[in-house]
Amino acid sequence: MTTTKLDEVLDYLDGGLPEALSRLKGFLTIPSISTDPAHNGDVRAAAVWLRDELSGLGFETEIRETSGHPMVVAKTPESPDRSLLFYGHYDVQPADPLELWTTPPFEPVIEDTPEGQVIRARGSSDDKGQLMTFVEACRAWKAVYGQLPPGLTLLFEGEEESGSPSLVPFLEANRDELSQSLALICDTGLSSDGRPAIATQLRGLVGEEVIIRGADRDLHSGMFGGLAANPIQILCNALTALKDENGRVTLPGFYDGVEELSDDLRRDWQALNFDAEEFLSRVGLKHPIGEKGRMPLEMVWNQPTAEINGITGGYTGDGFKTVLPAEARAKVSFRLSGNQNPAKIRAAFRAHIRAHLPADCTVEFHEHGESPASVMDTSDPAFETAKQALSEEWGRDAVFIGMGGSIPIAGDFKRILGMDAMLIGFGRDDDRIHSPNEKYNVESFAKGARSWARILHRLR
Amino acid sequence: MTTTKLDEVLDYLDGGLPEALSRLKGFLTIPSISTDPAHNGDVRAAAVWLRDELSGLGFETEIRETSGHPMVVAKTPESPDRSLLFYGHYDVQPADPLELWTTPPFEPVIEDTPEGQVIRARGSSDDKGQLMTFVEACRAWKAVYGQLPPGLTLLFEGEEESGSPSLVPFLEANRDELSQSLALICDTGLSSDGRPAIATQLRGLVGEEVIIRGADRDLHSGMFGGLAANPIQILCNALTALKDENGRVTLPGFYDGVEELSDDLRRDWQALNFDAEEFLSRVGLKHPIGEKGRMPLEMVWNQPTAEINGITGGYTGDGFKTVLPAEARAKVSFRLSGNQNPAKIRAAFRAHIRAHLPADCTVEFHEHGESPASVMDTSDPAFETAKQALSEEWGRDAVFIGMGGSIPIAGDFKRILGMDAMLIGFGRDDDRIHSPNEKYNVESFAKGARSWARILHRLR
Repeated sequence: MTTTKLDEVLDYLDGGLPEALSRLKGFLTIPSISTDPAHNGDVRAAAVWLRDELSGLGFETEIRETSGHPMVVAKTPESPDRSLLFYGHYDVQPADPLELWTTPPFEPVIEDTPEGQVIRARGSSDDKGQLMTFVEACRAWKAVYGQLPPGLTLLFEGEEESGSPSLVPFLEANRDELSQSLALICDTGLSSDGRPAIATQLRGLVGEEVIIRGADRDLHSGMFGGLAANPIQILCNALTALKDENGRVTLPGFYDGVEELSDDLRRDWQALNFDAEEFLSRVGLKHPIGEKGRMPLEMVWNQPTAEINGITGGYTGDGFKTVLPAEARAKVSFRLSGNQNPAKIRAAFRAHIRAHLPADCTVEFHEHGESPASVMDTSDPAFETAKQALSEEWGRDAVFIGMGGSIPIAGDFKRILGMDAMLIGFGRDDDRIHSPNEKYNVESFAKGARSWARILHRLR
Repeated sequence: MTTTKLDEVLDYLDGGLPEALSRLKGFLTIPSISTDPAHNGDVRAAAVWLRDELSGLGFETEIRETSGHPMVVAKTPESPDRSLLFYGHYDVQPADPLELWTTPPFEPVIEDTPEGQVIRARGSSDDKGQLMTFVEACRAWKAVYGQLPPGLTLLFEGEEESGSPSLVPFLEANRDELSQSLALICDTGLSSDGRPAIATQLRGLVGEEVIIRGADRDLHSGMFGGLAANPIQILCNALTALKDENGRVTLPGFYDGVEELSDDLRRDWQALNFDAEEFLSRVGLKHPIGEKGRMPLEMVWNQPTAEINGITGGYTGDGFKTVLPAEARAKVSFRLSGNQNPAKIRAAFRAHIRAHLPADCTVEFHEHGESPASVMDTSDPAFETAKQALSEEWGRDAVFIGMGGSIPIAGDFKRILGMDAMLIGFGRDDDRIHSPNEKYNVESFAKGARSWARILHRLR
């Protein structure tokens, strides 16, 4: 049996795991909480830590200033083959409430658990542990090949947990430098049944706030009830009429651009054996809503939604006041799929509300963001190649999955840099990201690095 | 032309108007603000002022303690004829914002205005000026007849502006003493076109708060949207379904007990020439809602309503959060008419909400009061008699009107003391009660006292 270069890289990773975990622990001691100005120095320290680590490996590395926290950009020499942009983020969520942590959030420890060893610390899974899987793969590669994989650009952001305000300007200002043939984003997880997964589609979003106004003051419902329009009632009527009795959104043209699942994707998703009732039971619910005849994963990954995220109007304090309120407000969002056009959906929603408005009432709208769905072009052979590499590493068939939420960075890469992204990550549902006692399985870390080695090997 | 005793009483009132206004001014200097504990002493001072005034006139008068502010009860000797209970309140609303008053609220002044003389002070219309119209009528009566009208009980409350917490216990504890053949309540106004009016029906009220709960926490709409029930949507759907496309309430049995207007009442109400568009234009609206084919006054006075008084759920702060909220709440009230049964309507509402509830959601209800509508038995000849007396005094046809709101005291008299009430008052729409610069027209005060003299004369 011949030993391939890939085998050597994987062996190197296995042998170097203790040192790799030590490095990750060092990274995790830095409380790089991007949303808290008191930690600005720590965020920069994390950027410096990364730069030093990458420079030491031979990357051409720079800390690039923005109007917020800096970017870290690291490159290997150009390649005649495929060029890749790898993305991760070095900032973390706040750790409070501190009293709920079993060990201090920035004093990482390796713990034995019934599900195997984990490394516990804020950022272990989101996203320091994940991004380091790629760095460790590069380290092993260099050790075996004598040089880093060519054609790589690594981009590390320090504001992901605080809304990425500098990212779009940075991408726009460095479009040529950052545009590669494909992006790799390591900030997602395994499928809920533990299989390796590549997210190939993400829903988009349209956010709207609507304010309906009637009388110029709150009215006494005894004096005016029965004569005066009630903005809460008008709002409820309009929001109810957004959906028909089957849960389908009624806005004209709403489903334009929504595509039925391909047979391949349907097979992948069915193979996940997603148990919607079990999933809902974790949050105290049981019965999935949604259209008859569609499987639950289709509802969250491939079907659009209309959801009321907030509503307020009239008297909402303790006790009771018999007012007919002057106004009522709601925040409504649409999750988009396929090629749905966000601007058209916003316009259709506004027309729908206006159609429910009596002539003496007024309406005001506020826009709260819009992004189309991201659907990756999986005919790019890189996707099938990565799937095979992941399947080999984990000994289970990797799957293409969807995501119900939006990962803005994937859309930004597509829109600004013109490239698709492969979203590959090794987090688990129980990693408690954004919560106390965040952890990352040592298996995720070790197999994650090995997965990237296999993917880089096949993509070269 | 013979001079009747009534003429003498009316002449006495005319001649004594300056002194009567002086007395009222004295009463109005007492800041008897019942809701503000700092004014507890002033509230008692107003009760003492009334007691002394009534004792001086020959009433058998007592200050009767309650757990709050005291009642003043004054009586004349029993009568073989009809016995009457007169009700008013000697407490007033707070006067702030003080800076909006053109003259100090507790320094009453007589002012000339384009609409005639007014007396301006807090409480001038609500209710000190109104209750004194009856006291002055009794004074003149005594001057002419040598004795007070027999068979009168006067009940003056000091907590009307702070929710009347002691009234029901007091009525229940003194049921036999206070039950008379008819109550007279002087705390209402002339019709909006300035004609004398007797309110013969008042809508009742059922108040409900509903809380719908879904998941045990707020959910991310990207992860759960399309699968998990949204309590706001469920609440909107249920509240929308409360009414059909004609604005009729859909609860089964809701209209049981609602009576069509009698021909007499319809004639009275039509004669008011109520201009709904003008009425609504004062608050920035224009188009009356309500059932087709019903006149606007019928909608506010004789038809029941279902109104959403408040709603809240999910994220309602600045910006946007794509949550599927754990719960949504609404406060809903029903104005009742005729013999609608409050308990049945509450039960029907709860059943309606439950029918809209998915199996894995829960609902909680809170009761916020209930009172049936008050419909006076106008076949009692006292009503027609008082109408004629009022018509004579004002030179315009008096009308029976309805009221869209509830006056709890009228319902309490009916329920606890078993008697109907004639609600007769002389306030005007522009009296600014509860607001800065409250006033009472001197014409209202003078003709009010004369009206009571005529009514007492005819009812004896």
